[in-house]
Amino acid sequence: MAQHIVTFDITEEAVSVPTGTLLVDAAREAGVEISQPCGGQGRCGRCAVQVTDGNVRRRSTLRLSNEDVASGYALACQSVVEADVSVHVPPQEKVERRLTTDLTVAEVAVPAGYDPATDQTIRRIPLSLTEPTMDDQTDDWSRVRTALRQETGINNVQITLPVLRRLGPILRDASWEVTAVVDTGPLVGLTTSNGDGAESVRLLQLLPGHVPADEPLWGAAIDIGTTTVSVWLVDLISGRVQVQTAEYNRQIRRGEDVISRIIYASKNGGWEEMRELVLASINQLLERACSRAAAKPEEVVKAVVAGNSTMIHLLLGIPAESIRLSPFITAVNQPPPFRAAEMGLAIHPEGTVDCLPGVASYVGADISAGVFSSGMDATETVSLFMDIGTNGETALGSREWLVTCACSAGPAFEGAGVLDGMRATRGAIEEVWINGETYEPTLRVIGDSAPRGLCGSGLISLLAELFLTGVVDKGGGLDLSLPTERVREGEHGPEYVIAWAKESAHGKNIVITHVDIDNLLRAKAAIYAGFTVLADSVGLPLETVEQVLIGGAFGKYINVEKAVEIGLLPDMAWENFHFLGNTSVRGAYLALLDRQIRARIDDIASRMTYVELSADNSFYDAFTSALFLPHTDISRFPSVAQALALEE
Amino acid sequence: MAQHIVTFDITEEAVSVPTGTLLVDAAREAGVEISQPCGGQGRCGRCAVQVTDGNVRRRSTLRLSNEDVASGYALACQSVVEADVSVHVPPQEKVERRLTTDLTVAEVAVPAGYDPATDQTIRRIPLSLTEPTMDDQTDDWSRVRTALRQETGINNVQITLPVLRRLGPILRDASWEVTAVVDTGPLVGLTTSNGDGAESVRLLQLLPGHVPADEPLWGAAIDIGTTTVSVWLVDLISGRVQVQTAEYNRQIRRGEDVISRIIYASKNGGWEEMRELVLASINQLLERACSRAAAKPEEVVKAVVAGNSTMIHLLLGIPAESIRLSPFITAVNQPPPFRAAEMGLAIHPEGTVDCLPGVASYVGADISAGVFSSGMDATETVSLFMDIGTNGETALGSREWLVTCACSAGPAFEGAGVLDGMRATRGAIEEVWINGETYEPTLRVIGDSAPRGLCGSGLISLLAELFLTGVVDKGGGLDLSLPTERVREGEHGPEYVIAWAKESAHGKNIVITHVDIDNLLRAKAAIYAGFTVLADSVGLPLETVEQVLIGGAFGKYINVEKAVEIGLLPDMAWENFHFLGNTSVRGAYLALLDRQIRARIDDIASRMTYVELSADNSFYDAFTSALFLPHTDISRFPSVAQALALEE
Repeated sequence: MAQHIVTFDITEEAVSVPTGTLLVDAAREAGVEISQPCGGQGRCGRCAVQVTDGNVRRRSTLRLSNEDVASGYALACQSVVEADVSVHVPPQEKVERRLTTDLTVAEVAVPAGYDPATDQTIRRIPLSLTEPTMDDQTDDWSRVRTALRQETGINNVQITLPVLRRLGPILRDASWEVTAVVDTGPLVGLTTSNGDGAESVRLLQLLPGHVPADEPLWGAAIDIGTTTVSVWLVDLISGRVQVQTAEYNRQIRRGEDVISRIIYASKNGGWEEMRELVLASINQLLERACSRAAAKPEEVVKAVVAGNSTMIHLLLGIPAESIRLSPFITAVNQPPPFRAAEMGLAIHPEGTVDCLPGVASYVGADISAGVFSSGMDATETVSLFMDIGTNGETALGSREWLVTCACSAGPAFEGAGVLDGMRATRGAIEEVWINGETYEPTLRVIGDSAPRGLCGSGLISLLAELFLTGVVDKGGGLDLSLPTERVREGEHGPEYVIAWAKESAHGKNIVITHVDIDNLLRAKAAIYAGFTVLADSVGLPLETVEQVLIGGAFGKYINVEKAVEIGLLPDMAWENFHFLGNTSVRGAYLALLDRQIRARIDDIASRMTYVELSADNSFYDAFTSALFLPHTDISRFPSVAQALALEE
Repeated sequence: MAQHIVTFDITEEAVSVPTGTLLVDAAREAGVEISQPCGGQGRCGRCAVQVTDGNVRRRSTLRLSNEDVASGYALACQSVVEADVSVHVPPQEKVERRLTTDLTVAEVAVPAGYDPATDQTIRRIPLSLTEPTMDDQTDDWSRVRTALRQETGINNVQITLPVLRRLGPILRDASWEVTAVVDTGPLVGLTTSNGDGAESVRLLQLLPGHVPADEPLWGAAIDIGTTTVSVWLVDLISGRVQVQTAEYNRQIRRGEDVISRIIYASKNGGWEEMRELVLASINQLLERACSRAAAKPEEVVKAVVAGNSTMIHLLLGIPAESIRLSPFITAVNQPPPFRAAEMGLAIHPEGTVDCLPGVASYVGADISAGVFSSGMDATETVSLFMDIGTNGETALGSREWLVTCACSAGPAFEGAGVLDGMRATRGAIEEVWINGETYEPTLRVIGDSAPRGLCGSGLISLLAELFLTGVVDKGGGLDLSLPTERVREGEHGPEYVIAWAKESAHGKNIVITHVDIDNLLRAKAAIYAGFTVLADSVGLPLETVEQVLIGGAFGKYINVEKAVEIGLLPDMAWENFHFLGNTSVRGAYLALLDRQIRARIDDIASRMTYVELSADNSFYDAFTSALFLPHTDISRFPSVAQALALEE
C-alpha cells in the first residue's frame, strides 16, 4: 500500500502513513494531540486543521464554512490522507482547571454520631501473636487467623497471594507484633446486592507494630463526572474530609458526552485507552490529595466510586456499546467490589474499590448517590431531584416511592452543540443582560477576561434575556426586523451577535444562531418533558412537587429566575429550589464512611422505578409542548407570564 | 570498582564483571548455565569448572582433589573473580527424561460410581436468556444471574473483572444462548478449612451456544515432586485420565533437595526465579498433555496441586526461609484456592487452582494426598505409609488415628551426597550383585549402557551386597584385607571400586567410599528411626504394623529384600509391602474429581498428628541404634540374621 509523508507544523518529525489513514491517526502517530470532543463523529468541528500543502479527501465538512474549506481547513477526524501533505494545527482549546471546585471548597460536616467501630467496614486490629516454637509449629497464616478470631470473633478471613507472600517476613521483622487492616464489607468478587457474605473479612494489610488508634486511616470518595472528576480524601477514623480536589476528566479529548466517548471507543477499540485516561485523572488527583495531607496513595485502603453508568463501565474497562444502542443495556448495574490492583487504581494494591450501584444505562450510580445525599428518600416531602447535564437525569419521589428517568437532553447546556459554546472556563460568558431598548448586551465573563464563548449558565441567561426583550419569539425565532445590527442574517442563518470580533479574546464574533437556539430549546424541552412524564407516571400533577433539589456542580451556577423564564425549571417559589452541589461525590463519601448508608444506596438503586421515556408517545408529546418559551401552556409559568406583561 | 573480563570456552561472548563476582554469576551473565545441585553451598562439587588462564580466589575446594585444584579446577559457586580469567566449562550432567514415567503408564481406573453432577465442583450449565427489550432493560450480569438461579437454584454467584469485560459481547454474539462454566467449590480467596462459603459459586467462563453434555471438560492433577513434576489431564465429565505426563522439575539446576533450593533462593532473592522454573515445568507438561488429547491448555478450567510444603511455597512465590530454620514454620499449610491467572498457571485464566493441604514444613500436601490414596485412613489395618526420599516422610495409623513425621534422611538415596551418586537416568547403575568369593560385581545399568554412577536403588542394592559378602561390616567399615583390588585406600579414604575407568562411560573409576557408606547409613537410619519413633509415640511396637505402603515413583524400583537387608525397611513378609507408585498425583486426581474426597484430604491433614523428631532425644537414640547394618538389635531383622547365617 502506498505510503505518504504527513508533516505537522507543531512538531518536527514527519510521519509516513499508508493511503487511507485518518488525519487524527496520523497526528497521534506524530505525537500531536487533536481534541475530538464529539468522539470523532465529525459533528463538533473542533478538530479542524489547515492543510497547507497537498490535499486530503474530506468525508465530511460539517461545521466548516465554504471559506474554511477554500483556505484548506479540514476535519481531522473525517479527512483521509491520499498524498503527501503538510498540516497546520491551530491552538487547541485549552482545558483550564476550574479552580473554584478545587481550592475553595466548603467544609464537609462529618455525619453526626459517626463511629468507625460500628459504621466503618475497614478495621485496624492490633495483634500480639505468640512466637512459634518447636512445640507450636502452627503455620503463619493460621497463627494470624487465630489471633484475629481471638481479638474480634472473626472466623472467616480471606487472604490474597500478594499478602500471603509478604506474611512471613513481616511477622518476623515485626517480632510478631502487628496491626491487621481488614475489610469486613462484602466479599470482593461477590455482588453486593444479595446481602450474603457480609460476615466475611479480607485481610488487606499487615503493618509492623501496633498502630495508635487515632492515627489516620485513609479512604477516598471518588466521583467520575463526564466532565469533572472529584476525589475527596477522608480519614476513616475521624470521618473527616481532609482534602477535596477536582480535575477535568481526561477522556474529554475523546468525546465531550458519554455517547461520543462510546462511539470513539467502539470505533478505535479504545476501551483500554478510555480506562487509562480516567485512571490517570483519578490517580493524579489521589496523588495531589495525599500530598496535601502528607499521606501516600498506597496508604489509602478503600475507595468508593460514583459516576454515571458509562463512566463506571469505562473505568472498569467494560465495553459499553450496548448502553448506546437500543434497547440500552448495561453490562452491570451493581458491580461487585474489586481489589485496587486489578482495577489499576493507585491506592494500596489490596484496597477495596466499591463502585456504587446504578439503575439503568442513563441513570447511574451518580443518581443513586445523589438521591441519597439529597435526603429525598428519607422525607415525606415530594421532591424532584435533578442533575442538569447531558442526560438530564431526574428522580421524583419521597420516602414511600421513587421514580427516575433520563431524558437525553444532549450536551447543549455543557456548551457543546452550540457554535460558540464552551465549558465554564476562563473566557466563558456566564451571565448576560440585554437592554430592552438598544438590544445591547452586558456580559459577565469567567476570569474577568475578554470573552471567548458561552458556557451553560451564560446560554440560559442569554436565552431568557433574548426572549424577555423580544429578540426571539415564543418559538425561538429571531426578529430580524429589530433596529439593531446585532440581529442579522449570518453565515449559518439568523443570529444575534453577543460580542464583536474586536471585543473577543480570539478576534472573531461571538454569536448565537437560530440553530443554536433550536438546540437549546430541544435540550430544555427534553428536561422539562422528563419532569412531566415522571409526574404523570405516578399520577401526580407537576405542581404538587414541594421542592426541587438540584445536584451537580453546574447547578450551582444556574440563575433560577432565568431557568424558569425559559421553561427549563418548573415555576415555583425560589425558596423551594435547593442547590446541593456535587451530590454524587457526597453520596460516595457517606457510603465510604458508613456501611448502613452503603446498604441504603443499594436499596435506593433497587427500588427506584426506571421510566423509559422512549417506550411510548407520552414523552414525545410532553417534549413537543415544551419546545416553546417557556411552554405552549403559559399557564404553567405564571411568574413568566407576569414578567412578560411587565416588559410590554 | 575494578572490572575483569571473564571468557567461557562454550560461548563466544566474554563478559566484564566487577571484582568479587562469583563465577556462577559471571557465567549466567554470559548465558552459560552451570548446574548447582546443592543450591550454591559448595557441597556437591558438581559446578566444578576449569580455570585455563588467569586465577580465581577459591573460598572452598570441598569435593575437589588436590590434583583437580592443581589443574585449575574450581567450584563455580565458591570462586570469586579478581582478575581476567578464561574458563573451561565441562559438559554438564544432562538431565534426560525418564521415559518410563511418561510414555508407558498404567491405565488409571475411574473411581466407581463417579457422577460429575454430584461429585464435581465444576458444572457446565446451558442457559437460554431472554433477549433484552425496551420493556426489560435488566443489565447483562443480572440476566445471567437470574438464569443461573432458575436453572440451578444458585443464588450467590461471583464474577471477576476479566469475565465481566467479555460478558456483553459474548451474550450478543451468541444470541443469548450460552453455556456457563461455574465452580461451585469454596470461594476463591477463602481458606478451605472452615467449611464456609461452600454454597458460593464463581463464573469461570461463558461459552457460546449450548455445549453437548458429553463433550470433555478438562481438569489437571499436578504433583510437584522435588525431582519430577507430573501432570495428568483429566476429563471431568467421564472422570477418565486421558494423558499422563512427567518431566524433571526445572528447579533441579538450583538445588537437588528442598533445603538447597531454599538456600539458593534466599541468597539470590530467587523466589521469583524458582516460581518461574516450576511454572515452566508445569506449563510445558500441560501443553504436551493437551496436545496429545487434541485440547488446548486454556480449556483446562481446574487444577489440583499436590507437592511438599517447600514446592507449594515456591510455586506460589511465597518465601520459604522459615521452613528451613528452626522452629521450621510454613507461611501456610492450607493455601486458599487461587485463580490461574494470578498464579501464572497456563490453563484458563479464570480456572481454579487448588493446592492440597499440608501438615507441617516437612509433611506436605504430597503426604496428605498420599495417605488418602493409599487408603490407610479408611481401614482398620494398622499401616505404615512412607515416601522414601530426601525427607523420608512417614505416616502410621488406621481409620482411628494417624501420626506422621519427617526424618530428614538427606538426599543420599536420590544420588546426592554420594561421590558417584546420580539420578536414575541413562547410565545409572540400578542393581548390583557381588560374588561372595571374588568380590567382583555384576551390574544392571539403566539404558543398558556403560555405567556413569549409581542411583538410589543401585545404592541400596550395592550396600546390601557389600554387607552380605562381608566387604563392609555391621558398622559400615570396609575390609581392606580382602583379597581383591576393588577394596582399597583411595583418595577419599577406603573405597570399593564398582567399575574401573576403562568400563565406565566417562573413563573414570566408579567407587563407593567409606564416607559415602556413612552417608547412606545415616539416611537409612533416619528413615528407620522415624518408623520407630512414630510407633513409640502411639505406644505400638513396630512389629504390630500390618502393612507397609510405599509411595513415590522411586519406591517402584526398590528391591524390598535388599532394603530390608540394610535395615531401611522393617523385616516383614514380602506380601505385606505394597508399592503404590505416585500416590501424590493420584490423590490430586481423586481430589480433582470429587468434592467429598477433597474434603477428606482436608480432614486427613487436620487430624494427622505431627511428631517433631527433634523435640526430644528419642529420635536420636533410635537413629543411633539404626546406624548399623541392619541394626544394633539384629533380632528386629530375623530374615537378615538367617541370610547372614547362610552366607557364612
